[in-house]
Amino acid sequence: MSQQRTTIHALHTALKNTSKPSIAMSSHNALSAKLASQAGFNAIWASGFELSASHALPDASILPWTAHLDVVRSISSTVSIPVIADIDTGFGNAVNVAYTIPQFEQAGAAAVVIEDKTFPKDSSLRSQGRQKLVSIEEFQGKIAAAKASSEMVIIARTEALIADLGEEEAMKRGEAYVEAGADAVLIHSKKKTPDEILSFCRKWKGAVPLVIVPTAYPSISFKEVGELGKVGLIICGNHAVRAAVSGMRGAFKSILEDGGIAGVEGSIASVEETFELQGDEEMREIERKFLR
Amino acid sequence: MSQQRTTIHALHTALKNTSKPSIAMSSHNALSAKLASQAGFNAIWASGFELSASHALPDASILPWTAHLDVVRSISSTVSIPVIADIDTGFGNAVNVAYTIPQFEQAGAAAVVIEDKTFPKDSSLRSQGRQKLVSIEEFQGKIAAAKASSEMVIIARTEALIADLGEEEAMKRGEAYVEAGADAVLIHSKKKTPDEILSFCRKWKGAVPLVIVPTAYPSISFKEVGELGKVGLIICGNHAVRAAVSGMRGAFKSILEDGGIAGVEGSIASVEETFELQGDEEMREIERKFLR
Amino acid sequence: MSQQRTTIHALHTALKNTSKPSIAMSSHNALSAKLASQAGFNAIWASGFELSASHALPDASILPWTAHLDVVRSISSTVSIPVIADIDTGFGNAVNVAYTIPQFEQAGAAAVVIEDKTFPKDSSLRSQGRQKLVSIEEFQGKIAAAKASSEMVIIARTEALIADLGEEEAMKRGEAYVEAGADAVLIHSKKKTPDEILSFCRKWKGAVPLVIVPTAYPSISFKEVGELGKVGLIICGNHAVRAAVSGMRGAFKSILEDGGIAGVEGSIASVEETFELQGDEEMREIERKFLR
Amino acid sequence: MSQQRTTIHALHTALKNTSKPSIAMSSHNALSAKLASQAGFNAIWASGFELSASHALPDASILPWTAHLDVVRSISSTVSIPVIADIDTGFGNAVNVAYTIPQFEQAGAAAVVIEDKTFPKDSSLRSQGRQKLVSIEEFQGKIAAAKASSEMVIIARTEALIADLGEEEAMKRGEAYVEAGADAVLIHSKKKTPDEILSFCRKWKGAVPLVIVPTAYPSISFKEVGELGKVGLIICGNHAVRAAVSGMRGAFKSILEDGGIAGVEGSIASVEETFELQGDEEMREIERKFLR
Repeated sequence: MSQQRTTIHALHTALKNTSKPSIAMSSHNALSAKLASQAGFNAIWASGFELSASHALPDASILPWTAHLDVVRSISSTVSIPVIADIDTGFGNAVNVAYTIPQFEQAGAAAVVIEDKTFPKDSSLRSQGRQKLVSIEEFQGKIAAAKASSEMVIIARTEALIADLGEEEAMKRGEAYVEAGADAVLIHSKKKTPDEILSFCRKWKGAVPLVIVPTAYPSISFKEVGELGKVGLIICGNHAVRAAVSGMRGAFKSILEDGGIAGVEGSIASVEETFELQGDEEMREIERKFLR
Repeated sequence: MSQQRTTIHALHTALKNTSKPSIAMSSHNALSAKLASQAGFNAIWASGFELSASHALPDASILPWTAHLDVVRSISSTVSIPVIADIDTGFGNAVNVAYTIPQFEQAGAAAVVIEDKTFPKDSSLRSQGRQKLVSIEEFQGKIAAAKASSEMVIIARTEALIADLGEEEAMKRGEAYVEAGADAVLIHSKKKTPDEILSFCRKWKGAVPLVIVPTAYPSISFKEVGELGKVGLIICGNHAVRAAVSGMRGAFKSILEDGGIAGVEGSIASVEETFELQGDEEMREIERKFLR
Repeated sequence: MSQQRTTIHALHTALKNTSKPSIAMSSHNALSAKLASQAGFNAIWASGFELSASHALPDASILPWTAHLDVVRSISSTVSIPVIADIDTGFGNAVNVAYTIPQFEQAGAAAVVIEDKTFPKDSSLRSQGRQKLVSIEEFQGKIAAAKASSEMVIIARTEALIADLGEEEAMKRGEAYVEAGADAVLIHSKKKTPDEILSFCRKWKGAVPLVIVPTAYPSISFKEVGELGKVGLIICGNHAVRAAVSGMRGAFKSILEDGGIAGVEGSIASVEETFELQGDEEMREIERKFLR
Repeated sequence: MSQQRTTIHALHTALKNTSKPSIAMSSHNALSAKLASQAGFNAIWASGFELSASHALPDASILPWTAHLDVVRSISSTVSIPVIADIDTGFGNAVNVAYTIPQFEQAGAAAVVIEDKTFPKDSSLRSQGRQKLVSIEEFQGKIAAAKASSEMVIIARTEALIADLGEEEAMKRGEAYVEAGADAVLIHSKKKTPDEILSFCRKWKGAVPLVIVPTAYPSISFKEVGELGKVGLIICGNHAVRAAVSGMRGAFKSILEDGGIAGVEGSIASVEETFELQGDEEMREIERKFLR
């Protein structure tokens, strides 16, 4: 429990360091989170998109919210860096938020991101997706419900730019969410270039740091974001599952073309490496101590 | 339901074609299964090792058996090729088998593999692992319980070679399991060369086909196995998760070294490709038809 | 699987017998369902209200929908009479319906009841509850999605009377739902007397039978309902959990007042009776056959 | 989190008060736990027997251990008195204990009871049940694993009397378990009179308090147990589910005999009473505060 308090505190502090934003990697299971932690990322984004993709299902409130909860629990018991739970819209209204937030805290999350779309949500990056937002007032109620039920970092995500409502509306929403208690504001964009986001960030006068997810506009570097001095956290939104797909696609193709498994031995992780990722050494230690 | 009957029947038939063994790819989630199915594999091995690895946990009866059940349900609703469930030891004794087997059938599996180790099991390929077997008689009871509670293909896996009990014991167990009703016998080996398995296969006179998992002795080709005329199914035991690991490791390293996500864009799956794997097209069709 | 087809068919047939309506008892777990089946009820109502109550939570879309699914799976594997799943609003929009319905079918349900409230729902009988309905057109889409994805009996529930929209609107909705494919229409009322329901039933000219839940107006007898010739199914909506509460309250009070457990022995079920309900005899049979 | 620390501390303290033992009531869901807490019991016994019975399944390691975990989580978020988790044998060996214990702590339990039977277990009170014990040394390893992975109260349960191994063996085991770190020893008996337990308690010189479950020998009063000065906790082992069964049986019979639901209205809990148990008032408060 003290570990969770530590990660919550660490994330609060890190978010304020806007000259050198923290970098979170997306994960769809404990394995990808462990790899991200070993690689040196600062936090884990327990992404609903990745989770849906790992089930071969659209990211559209189709998976039960308990799947989000379970993966947060699994990841949080595996890594010691902060885990940021993607709770979509909060899975309903403010009442749902009040009942589910404490469960995400108990599962070990250091933060949640809650977005201002209507439930059921549609994927932000999907062309022609359903991108309807709830009213500002309603979403403020959700943020307040989240803050009241937890000590976690509450990150309010506005989809105003995704829904083509314009920068002014996005700014208005961001400010209203800060007023309602948000610890940070995630401003999302699906433009192919960073211009829209850069403009928003430069104009942002809010009392809290911003969070961005540059999937659609990858050309921006982490350093450039730091120079803005407004963003405390950059989320790599779906790169774990996309890298896993390409890794598997390649190996599957080779094995069938080769007519055997020998050819991929050098290019995929070894069995021993996998044992290590599974915590084999920790289990051997348990055996030595307690198995009689 | 009729789809499940079809996959059970197809697997029964395929197992008999020992001159051209079916090739199953391991999977730890519906996404890896979908990729394997698209690549052209004949069946999915819902591997306990992969599942454990995806949770960053040892493959030693640490995950609840419901995790096996859930992944089988998820995979079976995603692919139309036969899904072979890895049920380890049956998660207890013959009574446990009798109660759990119908649940795996309901979850959509076409087959189960049950092994003759004691519960809790340890990973077969782990050096110095705990490899104690139950008695032949006890395991025959488990096989009989499985056969009596399901129409699925029941594959009995002997760990006699893994446990260093010798070829004679392995042969004796294989034959006893056929007698108890097994539809196929999985003979496992962790030798670095195929010699041990080749010898066993050549001597095998059992009335059912064999199944092998050549992870430890990858040099054997699928064609060579076919020439033996004894093996109906070759399982690629853990290549999906190992390929996913290498895919993610590479991308994670690049992103941190590059200080940005642009550099990996060409080497990882695109967002559009991921949408397609999530069944986005099917969902759009549902929207068009029913969302008013 | 054939058992499920049997219960679906049996329920279809039973619904048509409006001169002698089937009686379903609510259940919150497999135990209450087994008791209801043994008592002679014709079907099980896997009630969301009961399920929520058993978790000490409001019946307001707070439990994850997987809790509904799990209890349906557990009940369906325990009793052989038809199980009618309460899926509230379908847990979202028509897309959610299309994705969840096949899971309820796989879980063994013979029927689902889906209601025309907005998600998240509130309990119908709660005074001052939130009772907002979706449009007729939107709900028709949900019914069509349900019909297209399953062979189960689809029962459309209108909350028009609960929402004080009047008999005309209720009738209009009922007819529109039949048009969309509903196999039966559940007309709900929270009036303290049966008048409102009696009036609706008498005027009902729809091509399908009605279903009623007389919790609020208990004075009507099953016989009187049969005399209407319009109702194929009467659901006892929450009597299992309410009876369980009174049973437990009484025993708990006695034990603490008595300062011991001897006093309640005569009035609560015996341990042997409980063993029987747990299927002890079936397990002994499994032991005798398979445990070696 | 501080609440859990409070209940752990409270239970530690209460166990020492052997002149006035705490009384725990068994529960199979959050509802029964809430009723027990309201009635005045001092703790909740999250009973595996009750949980199995509520699923209409034998108490023989047939339910997945996650079902135990889920009910502990649900109960712990509902009541503020200590919740004692029944973890049977620890669901495997000492390695399983090491991996599952932290999950029960995270779920909110104040204590666990772990028993010295082999996995899969059989119900203690079942005549001719399988009652084989693990070695003392092996069980000491399990206790040590539990102590090392958690701050919860660890209660070691010996089934030596249940397995007809005699008082001397029971005493030896009890003492060995204290040596291994147990915070209390549960001594179980299925004799129809308290003589066996009384004899054991009087001879007990262990440094920790005893726990008893007088289901089989109900004639002993809580006061008599207190006079022994050895027992810190009395567990009412299965009275919630047995009372629920008799409550439901009675109501079901009446409804079918009466041909209507009016007759049971006075004898079962009212709908309003049920709303109150569901925390309706808390939800209304959430609505008032956050639903805009």
